[in-house]
Amino acid sequence: MSKSIKLAILGLGTVGTGVVHLINDNLDELKRRSGRDITITEVGTRRQRDDIDPAITQNSDLMAVAASNNVDIVIELIGGTTFAKDVILQAINNGKHVVTANKALLAEHGNEIFAAAEANNVHVAYEAAVAGGIPIIKVMREALAANKIDWLAGIINGTGNFIMTEMRDKGRPFADVLSEAQELGYAEADPTFDVEGIDAAHKLALLASIAFGIPLQFDKVYCEGITDITLQDVSYAEELGYRIKHVGFAVRRDGDGDKAGIELRVHPTLIPQDALLANVNGVKNAVLVNSHPLGQTLYYGDGAGAGATASAVMADVMDLVRVLGSDVAAKHVPHLSFQPEQLSDTPILRAEQMTSGYYLRVHAFDNPGVLADITRILSDAGINIDAILQKPAHKAGQVPVIILTLPVVESQMNLAIEKIENLETITDKVVRIRLDELT
Amino acid sequence: MSKSIKLAILGLGTVGTGVVHLINDNLDELKRRSGRDITITEVGTRRQRDDIDPAITQNSDLMAVAASNNVDIVIELIGGTTFAKDVILQAINNGKHVVTANKALLAEHGNEIFAAAEANNVHVAYEAAVAGGIPIIKVMREALAANKIDWLAGIINGTGNFIMTEMRDKGRPFADVLSEAQELGYAEADPTFDVEGIDAAHKLALLASIAFGIPLQFDKVYCEGITDITLQDVSYAEELGYRIKHVGFAVRRDGDGDKAGIELRVHPTLIPQDALLANVNGVKNAVLVNSHPLGQTLYYGDGAGAGATASAVMADVMDLVRVLGSDVAAKHVPHLSFQPEQLSDTPILRAEQMTSGYYLRVHAFDNPGVLADITRILSDAGINIDAILQKPAHKAGQVPVIILTLPVVESQMNLAIEKIENLETITDKVVRIRLDELT
Repeated sequence: MSKSIKLAILGLGTVGTGVVHLINDNLDELKRRSGRDITITEVGTRRQRDDIDPAITQNSDLMAVAASNNVDIVIELIGGTTFAKDVILQAINNGKHVVTANKALLAEHGNEIFAAAEANNVHVAYEAAVAGGIPIIKVMREALAANKIDWLAGIINGTGNFIMTEMRDKGRPFADVLSEAQELGYAEADPTFDVEGIDAAHKLALLASIAFGIPLQFDKVYCEGITDITLQDVSYAEELGYRIKHVGFAVRRDGDGDKAGIELRVHPTLIPQDALLANVNGVKNAVLVNSHPLGQTLYYGDGAGAGATASAVMADVMDLVRVLGSDVAAKHVPHLSFQPEQLSDTPILRAEQMTSGYYLRVHAFDNPGVLADITRILSDAGINIDAILQKPAHKAGQVPVIILTLPVVESQMNLAIEKIENLETITDKVVRIRLDELT
Repeated sequence: MSKSIKLAILGLGTVGTGVVHLINDNLDELKRRSGRDITITEVGTRRQRDDIDPAITQNSDLMAVAASNNVDIVIELIGGTTFAKDVILQAINNGKHVVTANKALLAEHGNEIFAAAEANNVHVAYEAAVAGGIPIIKVMREALAANKIDWLAGIINGTGNFIMTEMRDKGRPFADVLSEAQELGYAEADPTFDVEGIDAAHKLALLASIAFGIPLQFDKVYCEGITDITLQDVSYAEELGYRIKHVGFAVRRDGDGDKAGIELRVHPTLIPQDALLANVNGVKNAVLVNSHPLGQTLYYGDGAGAGATASAVMADVMDLVRVLGSDVAAKHVPHLSFQPEQLSDTPILRAEQMTSGYYLRVHAFDNPGVLADITRILSDAGINIDAILQKPAHKAGQVPVIILTLPVVESQMNLAIEKIENLETITDKVVRIRLDELT
């Protein structure tokens, strides 16, 4: 066991540079806590950097760094799902522990990568991959290790949450806020991953696996973005005591036959205004976990940024440092929280099998019978109405009717909406957004 | 290394029974996560219990259980600071790892207990001692291990928070709500530990040590309870955009000479209404940690109760199970987060050296010069006023004046208040409550 722990950092972008800064700033704390010296011995960077300590070897051949004899832990911060995968497997095959922030790679190829790590007796740590600096991976794998997790709900995409917050606070439409987010550097030039929910779906896939002990199944996450959310709906929701947030849900449904399974879904949803999760604003992230016997706990903080991500990366490094060289280093906490041979094949439910409340916005000709028709259709479908808001007509003869329902299986709601849209008095498609009381 | 991990539970009160139930309910999850079998082999209980699995040995001699050869981990849940200490030292001296929820014992005798554990190569785990089911010990020792912690602020006494919440929400006076809390079982028959802040001070002492790497110094925590908080102050605070909460603060102050040091304080304080911490209601707990480079993170959940406490106790057990038998079992995470020989003697500041904003309620005769007099005194003392609220006279000729100040060292505020109270127009003692913007 080497006395000084040797780190390699692959990729010196914002996060990689943040890790270098953290080690410079907090080296004394790192040593006082771990009782070990910690040194960056190599960095893998395509462009030579002159702002890096000359004692650190810079190498543009990242595959060589990942195999270097002068490295104990490889920190992968290059991103992407192709070369990053090769370089991580290279490190694993050379007996290095790996720390990564790469949510897309793990969500899509984690089963293969974790199996390779287990076969090579090394650990792949990924705290920074979900919710940035919030230690949700550690919390779920270790702090909640004695609990049975019922569900979790997370605001796990900062860009999306910034947009939803600005729309509500300032009454600005989606496209406007998105442009600002891009100027501020919160959103990428191509914002698809953020606003279509794909980034959140990557993170949800990881959270769900460690919550329920199931293999990673990113391809089965139901994914809906925020591009269709209008100011009108934001404002009606507020009027009814709710707030629209983009939330990732992983829910275990017990029951018989095809009702039993796991819901993995990422979508805009109405949540009660006074829920803490509804008051997570701007680029902040938070994850609410409901487990037995603990009940609800919430974890809040910065979901992105150099400092928050570097904090999570180095927490993983500290965990490894503390066990490095011992016989439990690779395996003391399983990658997906459950022992690999204990992962279960619990089915993932299809969208139409999922249960949630609904917000419906129906546009109808202002006709005395229309409300009766709509409520009869819902009632016939066994759907309970929780609240109705009928606004004055805003176009000639047309009134928006807002209906909040109690939880219902989506397939039932689909049938009811089809019937409502077939009414002669209904002028437009019914707008629907899910609703969750978080109880 | 035994294949099945053998637990002893000392004390079968609410929490002890909660641990038994958790193991019954979630044994499958515990095994699937740890890859080990977990069995309660012995319980130490003064009264024989007939609701316990007959395979478990019941023994009224707790010292014998703590030394039993049939036990790997001793879970101490009897409470108190005398016999509990003996029994924990007995377990340590017999090479058992210990899990305890005993905040009073650790705050007052932790330095001695941890030293004994280190000498005997065992670990004393105490997640359940602070903030119940919220994994704040794990978060601060492990997840934030790469951060320099600047300060933390915690709502860490559920009873106190229940009382403050009810006073605000329902406009009921302190004494009324306390009686209700006692009826509901939230407050003890002797509520001193809760309402005088002693319980919170115990927890704060533990949090501060692991935040800053200092020995436990419960005797140096400045401690003020909530017994003097009036509905009047609750309501003025709300009017000014603040909320009164009972909060424990641990703050590192850098600087020269006697300004440098650590503030350990537990007291009622005004915090901004829109802060998440201000919206932690009822018996819930939350801890807000500000660290570099991570920034602010918040951890929220149940701070007491059988389920939450059992969750934390068994998380500690799971951590031990995962490393049991390895060479890092006892020491992979140091008791106070920093290596024992790395604890520092940073001074703890005295109350008059501490810095915070203030809420002042001054009762004055309704005299045109009085506000000028008060503000001049504050200004001469270098104290900046942030807001003033002058209410209409409520007694003949007397007006309450509410003043919020920016942060100031307490000694300066003491002098200013003395001068204000010496004004002829001032009729009563000045009421003061600290104020913190949490930024």
